[in-house]
Amino acid sequence: MLTILPHHFAIITTDQQQEGFKLEVYLDNNATTRVDDEVLDAMRLIYIYDYGNPNSLHRKGNDAAQHMEDSRRILAKLLGVKSKEIFFTSGATESINWVMRSVARLASEKRNKLIIGAVEHKAVLKTAHDIAKIHNLDIAILPVDEKGVYLLDELEKKLDETVLLVALMSANNEVGTLQPVEEISKLVRSKAPRAFLLVDAVQSFGKSKMDLEAWNPDFLVLSAHKFHGPKGIGLLYAREGRIPFPLITGGGQERGFRAGTQNVPGIVGMAKAAELAVKDLEKNIEKMRKFQKLIAKKVETLGGVVITPLNNSLPNTITVSFPGILGHHLLNALSLEKIYVSTHSACSSSESTSHVLEAMGIKGKIALGAIRISTSRMTTEEEISFFLETLEKVLKFLGFDR
Amino acid sequence: MLTILPHHFAIITTDQQQEGFKLEVYLDNNATTRVDDEVLDAMRLIYIYDYGNPNSLHRKGNDAAQHMEDSRRILAKLLGVKSKEIFFTSGATESINWVMRSVARLASEKRNKLIIGAVEHKAVLKTAHDIAKIHNLDIAILPVDEKGVYLLDELEKKLDETVLLVALMSANNEVGTLQPVEEISKLVRSKAPRAFLLVDAVQSFGKSKMDLEAWNPDFLVLSAHKFHGPKGIGLLYAREGRIPFPLITGGGQERGFRAGTQNVPGIVGMAKAAELAVKDLEKNIEKMRKFQKLIAKKVETLGGVVITPLNNSLPNTITVSFPGILGHHLLNALSLEKIYVSTHSACSSSESTSHVLEAMGIKGKIALGAIRISTSRMTTEEEISFFLETLEKVLKFLGFDR
Repeated sequence: MLTILPHHFAIITTDQQQEGFKLEVYLDNNATTRVDDEVLDAMRLIYIYDYGNPNSLHRKGNDAAQHMEDSRRILAKLLGVKSKEIFFTSGATESINWVMRSVARLASEKRNKLIIGAVEHKAVLKTAHDIAKIHNLDIAILPVDEKGVYLLDELEKKLDETVLLVALMSANNEVGTLQPVEEISKLVRSKAPRAFLLVDAVQSFGKSKMDLEAWNPDFLVLSAHKFHGPKGIGLLYAREGRIPFPLITGGGQERGFRAGTQNVPGIVGMAKAAELAVKDLEKNIEKMRKFQKLIAKKVETLGGVVITPLNNSLPNTITVSFPGILGHHLLNALSLEKIYVSTHSACSSSESTSHVLEAMGIKGKIALGAIRISTSRMTTEEEISFFLETLEKVLKFLGFDR
Repeated sequence: MLTILPHHFAIITTDQQQEGFKLEVYLDNNATTRVDDEVLDAMRLIYIYDYGNPNSLHRKGNDAAQHMEDSRRILAKLLGVKSKEIFFTSGATESINWVMRSVARLASEKRNKLIIGAVEHKAVLKTAHDIAKIHNLDIAILPVDEKGVYLLDELEKKLDETVLLVALMSANNEVGTLQPVEEISKLVRSKAPRAFLLVDAVQSFGKSKMDLEAWNPDFLVLSAHKFHGPKGIGLLYAREGRIPFPLITGGGQERGFRAGTQNVPGIVGMAKAAELAVKDLEKNIEKMRKFQKLIAKKVETLGGVVITPLNNSLPNTITVSFPGILGHHLLNALSLEKIYVSTHSACSSSESTSHVLEAMGIKGKIALGAIRISTSRMTTEEEISFFLETLEKVLKFLGFDR
């Protein structure tokens, strides 16, 4: 039997009731987030009432198209760009593939270099290697310093007229390090003016300030499920006239650039989630920053190591290690207590070491012990207290010896 | 102010209340469908409770993965295939692009012919032309007879050892004609054994019987929003070992074949929608067939022309024409009465003539007058009666003169 608690929509099964209700603490918000209730309410209206195909010519189609274009305007305004520069996709991975595979078709012998960062998401890294093979491109990997920050002097050395595309993230998903996007962009524009610049901003939106005017990218990607929106929807910002080809062709949707019936409930949900993510952003950053500091202090007291550079990071992310304890053992022990953290990225969760930590020069016991704690604006003080208490208990149980 | 009617989730705004509540009749189910309430309920539990990333290693991730794999098993069982042959995508258009763009990479000088049907969806037609340009392929267009059925003797002539891919639909979206998929498949297997066979079954699922054993395709695509499931989710059935490359690379999801965090609520919704679509299928077919006949009779009484071949069509689709009246005028006039039909495919709705009617040899006033009425298992007798009454009224108003 299901009991529904109306305020938080938490559902407790009879089994769970019998084992005694226990606070569930979700601290893996860089992997995905819970959909906001307001987002779900907005989507529900589309699912059950304005369910028309936005490409249909009747009123039911027009109504759906209206919701879709309103959402596009909301998102464009929040990003400070034009509506026609926003394209809807199934998520950031599709957006990244679209940009990289499409730009690769413009390659020539004189313009065949990709610059990608060493700590990028697999969506960039794997796609770079795939298109390099198909189109015979050269890949230059941009290294980071020990805090995970891209080395600008190394970037400068790699930039020349052969560069086709530079793909870099604004904030790292595994350790939370912020990148100097404005400086990177200025360097790219001055040293390789014909290069395209793709910014993976998936982890920034709703957690740190984004200034698209200063960043000046050609392309920028977002995924709704990283900011309390639904899964299966994302966007590509493409500066007017910059996206060369579609990745997915067919019925001519998205002005011929992305075919397939648009996911209108998802689009409306993403726009609502984006509004909520930037509302009270400063207050939320402050709260998450406070939690990050509390966690750092406790970890140090317990004899652990803080990997995330706290003075240059997303406020919601803190990667720590208890050398000698394996990260996935700690993850499992916490999971049994209904506390959810990650070792590294969910998308690489089956691999044993992190390419991000490796690029930062972090090896051995510290790398193997790393866990990532990622909060969100929904995280409460009560949850953090419970997490910190339980962490201490679990580490004792696992025999952690500072 | 919104008034919510709990049973049908219909929402009536104050404006609508003032103009007097009027039955809304949605007869454009080949373009998209309303999400079933049971589907939305199933999705809601995932959105608000089991919202983990299925690739995360903790319990919240495992629970999401469990829902996803249960859904994959349900869909595989309904199609009579193996779970590992089902891949989740953002919809049929992505699935089609994936197959066609991926198979095209296997082309060689000796194996460079695409056979595509003249009445295919734009997802196949446009993608064929795009990959033909990129990979230097030859396209052979398979013609249809006056009922829209593919000509088997023409197919036989085109089949040889140079054929890389044959892409054909099981039922036409615009006129509802059923294709002899089993015979097509047998011909392909005997005359071009190395060719891949892609079947676009988007319009068949939940409206007619599908026999994958007899059809014996290498690839088959479905979109959930065509059978009362959510938008933004679809699947690719790919026979074991047949899909050569991913279209979207990254985090290694879907066994390395389709990257991006899986849309678990969408996947669960699609599986639930599929179960509902095949439950009582025969009864639903019978009901839709009855409506189709009622509409045909009335259209003929009114002096119109029935284009759909009723003895070889989807039960839910009937395309008719009132020569002299433009299809989009009739569509608009019906839309004002809250009755929603289409001229031709929603994906081609901005084009003035239908490539399907053209291929069937239907031209001039009949082609320009065509409208498509597509019912679903949710369509009621009351709605059909209201539609037929209104159709007569509207035709008089438009000055239709038999």
